[in-house]
Amino acid sequence: MPAFRRVRGMRDFKPREARMMKYIEGKARRVAQLYGYREIITPVLESYELLAAKAGEEIRSRMYAFKDLGGRKVALRPEFTASMARLVATTLRNEPKPLRMFCVGSLYRYDEPQQGRFREFWQSNYELMGSNKPEADAEILMLTNSLMKAVGLKNYVFKVGHVGVLRGILSQKKVEDEVQNRIMQLMDKKHYDDALGLVEEARVSEKCLATLRKLVKVRGTKVHKAMSEMEGLVEGYERAGFAVRNLREILELVSESGQKIDITVEAGFARGLEYYTGMIFEIYVPEMDIALGGGGRYDKLIELFGGEPTPAVGVAPGTDRIMLAMLKQKTSLRIKEEKTVMVIPIKEELKGEALKISRTLRDEGILVEVEVMGRKVAKALEDADRRNIDYAVIVGERELKEKAVVIRNLKKRDQKTVKIKRITEMIKG
Amino acid sequence: MPAFRRVRGMRDFKPREARMMKYIEGKARRVAQLYGYREIITPVLESYELLAAKAGEEIRSRMYAFKDLGGRKVALRPEFTASMARLVATTLRNEPKPLRMFCVGSLYRYDEPQQGRFREFWQSNYELMGSNKPEADAEILMLTNSLMKAVGLKNYVFKVGHVGVLRGILSQKKVEDEVQNRIMQLMDKKHYDDALGLVEEARVSEKCLATLRKLVKVRGTKVHKAMSEMEGLVEGYERAGFAVRNLREILELVSESGQKIDITVEAGFARGLEYYTGMIFEIYVPEMDIALGGGGRYDKLIELFGGEPTPAVGVAPGTDRIMLAMLKQKTSLRIKEEKTVMVIPIKEELKGEALKISRTLRDEGILVEVEVMGRKVAKALEDADRRNIDYAVIVGERELKEKAVVIRNLKKRDQKTVKIKRITEMIKG
Repeated sequence: MPAFRRVRGMRDFKPREARMMKYIEGKARRVAQLYGYREIITPVLESYELLAAKAGEEIRSRMYAFKDLGGRKVALRPEFTASMARLVATTLRNEPKPLRMFCVGSLYRYDEPQQGRFREFWQSNYELMGSNKPEADAEILMLTNSLMKAVGLKNYVFKVGHVGVLRGILSQKKVEDEVQNRIMQLMDKKHYDDALGLVEEARVSEKCLATLRKLVKVRGTKVHKAMSEMEGLVEGYERAGFAVRNLREILELVSESGQKIDITVEAGFARGLEYYTGMIFEIYVPEMDIALGGGGRYDKLIELFGGEPTPAVGVAPGTDRIMLAMLKQKTSLRIKEEKTVMVIPIKEELKGEALKISRTLRDEGILVEVEVMGRKVAKALEDADRRNIDYAVIVGERELKEKAVVIRNLKKRDQKTVKIKRITEMIKG
Repeated sequence: MPAFRRVRGMRDFKPREARMMKYIEGKARRVAQLYGYREIITPVLESYELLAAKAGEEIRSRMYAFKDLGGRKVALRPEFTASMARLVATTLRNEPKPLRMFCVGSLYRYDEPQQGRFREFWQSNYELMGSNKPEADAEILMLTNSLMKAVGLKNYVFKVGHVGVLRGILSQKKVEDEVQNRIMQLMDKKHYDDALGLVEEARVSEKCLATLRKLVKVRGTKVHKAMSEMEGLVEGYERAGFAVRNLREILELVSESGQKIDITVEAGFARGLEYYTGMIFEIYVPEMDIALGGGGRYDKLIELFGGEPTPAVGVAPGTDRIMLAMLKQKTSLRIKEEKTVMVIPIKEELKGEALKISRTLRDEGILVEVEVMGRKVAKALEDADRRNIDYAVIVGERELKEKAVVIRNLKKRDQKTVKIKRITEMIKG
């Protein structure tokens, strides 16, 4: 039979990568604790209706959707926020606010596989529900920065915008939501001309179109300068003005917190999900074209899902993308390496003794492999060496009579006879 | 819009349960390290052919199978072993043996939802590839026991059998594999009469049928006694005899290791998966009807999947089932509780300062929530109290001039003014 293959777009993580993934998840979990976010677990499989409701056409068309054996239309989640919103609209409806929630897991989108982009991908996800204040948005930006710092990334930049700026202007000009969504989709893909074409078709004034043309070009790392330009351009557009002031306030709070974050403000910035209503952002490193994660404010989603009106803001850093960035930046993991031991019986009859010594050592917190291939000592030692094990514990009859074994330091290449109860102190020593 | 609902058979874990799940996964990961198993991550989505190949009819018919947007027949994994075997038959083909692998994640089966049984469930999974020796089987039993002990479970019992006993007899009597599989399926569901009926239809001798009738009744906690009964019954069946001696050797090694495991030997024990070839086992607690996990030896799977012939043995403890058992046994988690702090600005203009102090505290490893609802101090304190927070840090203008804040111990209900740089030492003690 020919070997079975992995499904296209899917991926296996070998031990080195899996270890990085778990390292990043560990840091994400620690950041959640430090900021007061409590972990929840939601299913990978949700109703298609829930996931499709406000995902945006782009994502909706790429969902893994199917009917289960009971005829229900279901799909694999393409993002976490819909599930979180479902929870807050139902089971957690009566929880007092603010509600800080965290989750970790895999997500699914049928995108074209490419560098760093797979059809199964991993995120940690943080949601702060119940506050419409700028300090909530600031917290999400700070928390994201804390994670990037915790994993040891360098030179990352936050691209920040506010969907209320463009949508504010379009709404004031009575452009329908449906058309606005299409315009934002095009903006997300940086098809600015097509987006402005759609605006033109919506018959807004020449002056408004000129304003939008200028707005989408506002971007810069000098936050105050960019904000002032935006402020000037939106004059006369009341809701857009609110949005700009809101964004300014958020960024000022971040700055006052003393947390240094490299920020690029971009007035024409949009994201794939339709549910955003306020500040939005993504994180980039110079080594990669795709974002390491992103998030933003979505004040209408919970009520759209049948819950109480609940303002909310969140972020979803991509675990596998952060891993890729760490690999590119050669970030080393700060993990305490523990010593490893291989226990080898010198003959068949001592297998039980080898298992017993292994058990004793593990009970004392030592990492122990036991020889299970029935190999001769020399062969087993070769294998231990190849796999970079630190010590071999060789179990022989003669030493056992003295309640002892031979310990071989595989790095220093010396060996001595040691009482069994002394092994741990010798290795941990 | 009415609230969206969770899909039937799926489940959300709220913070308390999610914490238990992560606690169990943490212990499972530690046990993997202690025994030298390295973590890998494989996709939730695999080709239908791979997952269906040796799953057994029961599981095959309950898979979440569908076509992806590219027309590939795929399914959500109902277990881990097929993916592990795929890896060893392909990417890890040339890795030296033994290969010890570990993974953690969610699995999917369209079973009828009932107490402790959901359509999405979680397992940790350990596979030891490359050894056909009884010490490998013994290691898997010991490792499983170590996990049960590590999470604090009590009174659990290992039910142990060996598929080679019944299959050995049936093969010697030339009963076809296909029929054997159906017989084992019935045994798995404890439909012994139906199973023996099928044996009868296969026209084995009356003497053989009588032997099988007696064999399926052999079960007992006295391992030696049960093994001797089995040994007596299989006399004249060569392969079944090998199986019984193999099982005896495995159990003797476990006993010699000094690890105390409560074992019930059951000669008529079978499991749902078709790929087992040797020792099989499951773990039970008295409080639950369903197994906490199970595993066994499968020496033919890797070559069936196109790899080199590779004997293997593994186990998959169920994370959510262990959680349920812990809840029923009221097992408490051994987690060091850290103090929590809420930082509250006394007025709007001090929000930036509050964020700054929060950031400083988090940098020193303190768990900090910051007030983001714009509430008055009294309201925020009420909320902090309700949520069992330990300290409130109240940020006021007067104290700030002295680089200080007011700290309120919410448990002792007293407060004092403290320099900002002293907060950490005060809280961490």
